[in-house]
Parts: sequence; structure tokens; C-alpha cells
Amino acid sequence: MKTDHDFMKMALDLAETAKGKTNPNPVVGAILVKDGVIVGSGLHRKAGEPHAEVHAFKMAGEHAKDATLYVTLEPCSHYGKTPPCANLVKDSGVKRVVVAAQDPNPSVAGKGIGIIKNAGIEVEVGVLEEEAKKLNERFMHNMITQTPFVISKVAMTLDGKIAAYTGHSQWITGEEARKEVHYLRNEVDAILVGVGTVLADNPRLTTRLDQPAKNPIRIILDSKLRTPIDANVADCSEAQTIIVTGLDINHEKASALKEKGVKIIQVSDDGRLDLKEAMKRLYEEGITDILLEGGSEVNASFMRDGLIQKYIVYIAPKILGGKSSYTPFRGEDVETVDEAVQLRFETVEKVGEDLKVFAYPAG
Amino acid sequence: MKTDHDFMKMALDLAETAKGKTNPNPVVGAILVKDGVIVGSGLHRKAGEPHAEVHAFKMAGEHAKDATLYVTLEPCSHYGKTPPCANLVKDSGVKRVVVAAQDPNPSVAGKGIGIIKNAGIEVEVGVLEEEAKKLNERFMHNMITQTPFVISKVAMTLDGKIAAYTGHSQWITGEEARKEVHYLRNEVDAILVGVGTVLADNPRLTTRLDQPAKNPIRIILDSKLRTPIDANVADCSEAQTIIVTGLDINHEKASALKEKGVKIIQVSDDGRLDLKEAMKRLYEEGITDILLEGGSEVNASFMRDGLIQKYIVYIAPKILGGKSSYTPFRGEDVETVDEAVQLRFETVEKVGEDLKVFAYPAG
Repeated sequence: MKTDHDFMKMALDLAETAKGKTNPNPVVGAILVKDGVIVGSGLHRKAGEPHAEVHAFKMAGEHAKDATLYVTLEPCSHYGKTPPCANLVKDSGVKRVVVAAQDPNPSVAGKGIGIIKNAGIEVEVGVLEEEAKKLNERFMHNMITQTPFVISKVAMTLDGKIAAYTGHSQWITGEEARKEVHYLRNEVDAILVGVGTVLADNPRLTTRLDQPAKNPIRIILDSKLRTPIDANVADCSEAQTIIVTGLDINHEKASALKEKGVKIIQVSDDGRLDLKEAMKRLYEEGITDILLEGGSEVNASFMRDGLIQKYIVYIAPKILGGKSSYTPFRGEDVETVDEAVQLRFETVEKVGEDLKVFAYPAG
Repeated sequence: MKTDHDFMKMALDLAETAKGKTNPNPVVGAILVKDGVIVGSGLHRKAGEPHAEVHAFKMAGEHAKDATLYVTLEPCSHYGKTPPCANLVKDSGVKRVVVAAQDPNPSVAGKGIGIIKNAGIEVEVGVLEEEAKKLNERFMHNMITQTPFVISKVAMTLDGKIAAYTGHSQWITGEEARKEVHYLRNEVDAILVGVGTVLADNPRLTTRLDQPAKNPIRIILDSKLRTPIDANVADCSEAQTIIVTGLDINHEKASALKEKGVKIIQVSDDGRLDLKEAMKRLYEEGITDILLEGGSEVNASFMRDGLIQKYIVYIAPKILGGKSSYTPFRGEDVETVDEAVQLRFETVEKVGEDLKVFAYPAG
């Protein structure tokens, strides 16, 4: 006999397959169960397409009557691209609704559940809530902060080096880990690097996979607009590019970049770009998550400003040493180790010969 | 019905409880099984005490007849502090002997097995061989190289920093990880640091545990004999101290240190101490394993000379950043990441909030 947990787990598993495809929406899975049999199932596949509940009810037809609905996120209560799912649930004939997590948006949280409860339907909230929040960590962060979810990706040796003093870094990690980075790029709206990386490596920052893949928007932090007109990232034929720069810029250079299709966003610049303002502006541009790929000064600025929501650190089984090798986070020196930014380790796994560590800011 | 693997695993489990207590000898476990019942069991508890087989046969008495002997290391064939175990086995009446690993000492490997085979007893070698070699990795290394087994211990932040630029490092890792270091010290013959660590921190380098513990010998690499007469490590009342220094030293200082009980070992000094010579000399002093606890120049020298047999890296969930923070391995800069020393990760586990990574030199 399957339990509420079992069915909710199945709904979460459905939802997870669409991760990275539904931005700016959350991923949602729904299952309708009657007498132990799944009579309907669905997930939200892509923004603009039907919500998970719609698919599930469509499949179930009249079998929805007296069924139990398992849904990973509170049914919506607002008229968006589709009518509110809470109304659909209310009118469906289901006798019980199990919800994993409430809508994180403070202004609508509980409203969808309220509509359903008021119709006399039994509602239970919180089954596999942590798992559901985790699955939608990007969306949760977006709703609460109205800024993009920032993932810092680092590839380093066991002794914390990302390149030799010459800048040589090909390759620190093995093939599997490097391939994973392309899967990561395929899942996010944007990828961000500092102009130093552009000047040093002239990267394309596109997604290279054996399967059809999405190129995220390339964001360059470039306070003095030093990105060369002929840089690979200034070529917008394959992927969009946004340069975040300061208020006082060379307008001729800006025009030339714009002519190539590059978007310029200007933010306050007090010796260094106001990253918090930049995050708000990028969210207004529709960017819900960003993969931060360095260099080490950019990484340190984001870290010290508390703007990193997740750390993915690949550790290669190598020791480089050296007095002037590059380390993943640079920035200003601090006096004591008490001033370190505190994280918590979530998981660690082997990827090829390397380790992959997931960490989150503590507290 | 238990298999050869099961019984050998039990013998290995017996042996493991004495790890760190038998130096310079290996740890060995033995089990005698007759009709599926264990009629004898034993392990080598401490150098000078009986070998594992002796205990097992003593317990078994006449039940040894027609039994099977499981032993984790080839029975010895030489007259040492005890008579050769191979003769004991030969005369015991057992009908079958299962050995996990051969004696690693090239000059005696196979001789013990030969004595037993020549007596007409069935012998099988290689059951759980890898596990047995791993358990005796220190002894295996000693026998083959005639040098101590060197374990590099590092405690760093996730971004590979071991201290702020000021030298402040208390504490990088949490209480559990720091406690583990004392268990490590309790298991090794010696602990080694550079004189820089002595001058900076004036450590005592003793073992602090809630249970009776052994203080390893403290080895200071000190090419110019800069260890202060009143340094904590020069006080030999709690633990022995060896200073490894160069050929051209201040004899007055050396005499003063010797008067306090410090032993001075002089090795070739070509701008920097000949570490390979030092390792041979320390092994001649009876030191079979060394815990290397830094600093980062000493770590790098050992690493580049290929003198580290095992790496234990504690990683704290923190990011320190900084231009001049200390990293675990310093040494000379190299041009490309291809010049990194290649390792392989063995295991990674959580210790409190920290990660503990075991790595070995690759190949």
C-alpha cells in the first residue's frame, strides 16, 4: 500500500525532469490517485504550457471524482497565462488534496489552498516539503528576493588552485566534470564572468553538448567597458550578451557594442560595480538564475556581498602548489579565519576521478 | 555457511584493532576454523608479544588438527623475537591455510608459504589481499622502501586556505576534526613540522585525548638550527624531539639542544635539506611512520620529492578568500597545471560539519 509520501515522491520525480526548462516558472508535478491507482499525472513542462494539475485532470477525466490530488506546489490562485488551478481543483470533484509546499510568494501564499479548503475539500500541506522547496530552490529565491538565484561553480585542485601563475588551467578537472558544466549551462538562464576572464581567455561561454542545448545569456561584469568589440562574447549570433557596466562610460564603445547586439546595463559604480543593484536589474530582464564562472575577484565580490545561493565545487585529485597560483576566491585579505564566509556542505559525490561538493550559505 | 571471505574479514577485523600499536611490526589477525566453528583466534597486539598465529593455536589446542587457518599476512619464516610461525603451522596438524597477502619483504616473501606447502598442507593466497595490504600500508611501504610511511595532514577552507595572511588559523575545522588529529598523532611514531611552524606558533605537538595516549616523537626540519632553546618542542620531558638539520651548523647551539635531550640528525644540505636522506636516517632510528603537519613549504617539498604516501585533507565549509591567505602547499611555481602532482581519491566522509578526504599518489 503506497503512502502519501510515496505518491508525493512520484510527483516530485515527474517535476524534476523539467528542471531548468520552466523558467521563470517553478517545476511542478501532480498525481491523481483513486483507490490506490494513479488515474492522472502531469507536470509543468515549460512556461506558457499548461500547469501540472491541468495535465493530470485532463488525463483523469471523470475518474478525478473522489480522487486524491498530490501536487508538489500550492495550486495557483491568480489569472496568468492559464486560469487559476485552485478553481480547477475546487470544481474537479476530488475529495482530498495533498500539497508539498506553499507558494513562496508572500502575497499569494495560502490563497490557492484557501480557495480549495473553502470548497469543503480536505487539504494537507507539508508532505515532503523540504524536498519540494529544494527542487524549486531557484523559484523560491526569486519569489522572496526578486533577484536571480546565483550558483558559483569552481573547478580546483585538492590544494585549492584554479590555475598556474601563468593563467594556465587546461585542464584541472577531468572530462566528466567538464561535461557537467555544459549540462549546468544548459539549465540556467545566464552565465556570468568578469571582463578579466574575457580579456584573458576570450571564451565563447556557449553550451557544448551532444544533444540539442540552450545557450544561456552571457553576462559580463565590465565596469570600464573593456570588452573588445571583436571578443567572442560580443558576437551575439549564437547567444545573447549583456554587459553590466558603470554610469560613466565611453558612449562610442557602448554604441559599437550595442550595434553588435550586446545589451548594456548601467549600475552605480562606487569604485566597484553595485552588484546588488545589478542583480535586481538582471532579474527585471527576466533572468532567474545565473551560473557564476569567475574569475576569482568576481567570485570573491559575490561571496562577500552574500549574493551566492549555492556553491558547486569540483575538486581534482591533484596538488599544484606554488606561491602565485590562482585560488578560486581572491578579494581583500581579512585578519582572522573568523571572517570566513560560513557554508554548510550538502552533498559530495564522485564525478569521474574528481569530487563534486554542493554547499550552501550557512543559516 | 560462512565463506573464506567471511572468515578472512573477521581476521582482518581482529587485526585492525591493534593498528598503530604494533610498530614496527605489521598488524596480523589469525582464525582457526573447524567444521564451521572458530576454534582459535588471535592477533598480534604489540611488538615483542606473540604473533597472531601463536595466540590462535594456543586457544585451539588439539582442535587445530584438520582445521583451516585464516591469516591476514604470510606466516613468518625467520627467527626473530619469536620462533618462525611457518614451522608452528607446519607442525600444527591444520589441513588448509588461507593467506590474504604475502610478506612484502622481497627477501622473505613466499618463504613462509613454501615451508607450509612443502609439508603437504593446502595453501591458498590472495583472499582479501587488497584489504590486507591496505590495512598494513605502513608496513608494506617500510619493507619495500626502508623509509617511514609519510601521511600529510591538512586542514583548509573550501577555497583552499589554511590561515589568514596574518597567520591566524584558529580554527579552520570544527571540534570533531581537530580531535581526530589527536587520534592520528596517537597512532604514529612521529610528527614532523618545519622550523617555521615552531617559530610562528611554538607548538607542543603532543597528543591530547581523554584516554591514555602516546606522544609521537617530534621531528623538526630545521636546516639552520633556528629552533629556540626554550621552544616547547625543545622540552623533552613529555615527548622525544629530533631536529633534522644540515651539515654546517652552530655546534654551540647544537650542544645546548642536545643537553636538553634533543637528538640532532645532520643530512646533506644543498640549499635545502636532503629529505630522501632524512627519511632513510629516520627509518634507521626506528621511525616507521610520520604525520606531516606543515607548514606549506615543508608540505610542498615533501610532495614534490614524492615522499608523501597518503593525504588526509579536512575541508571546512567556509570560504576565506584573500590575496595573501596561506594555502596548504606552497613551493615553487610551475608554468602549467600539467605539472600538478597526480593523486587519486580513496574516500570522502563527513566529520562534524567538515569533510575528510583520503587521497593517495596516483599510479
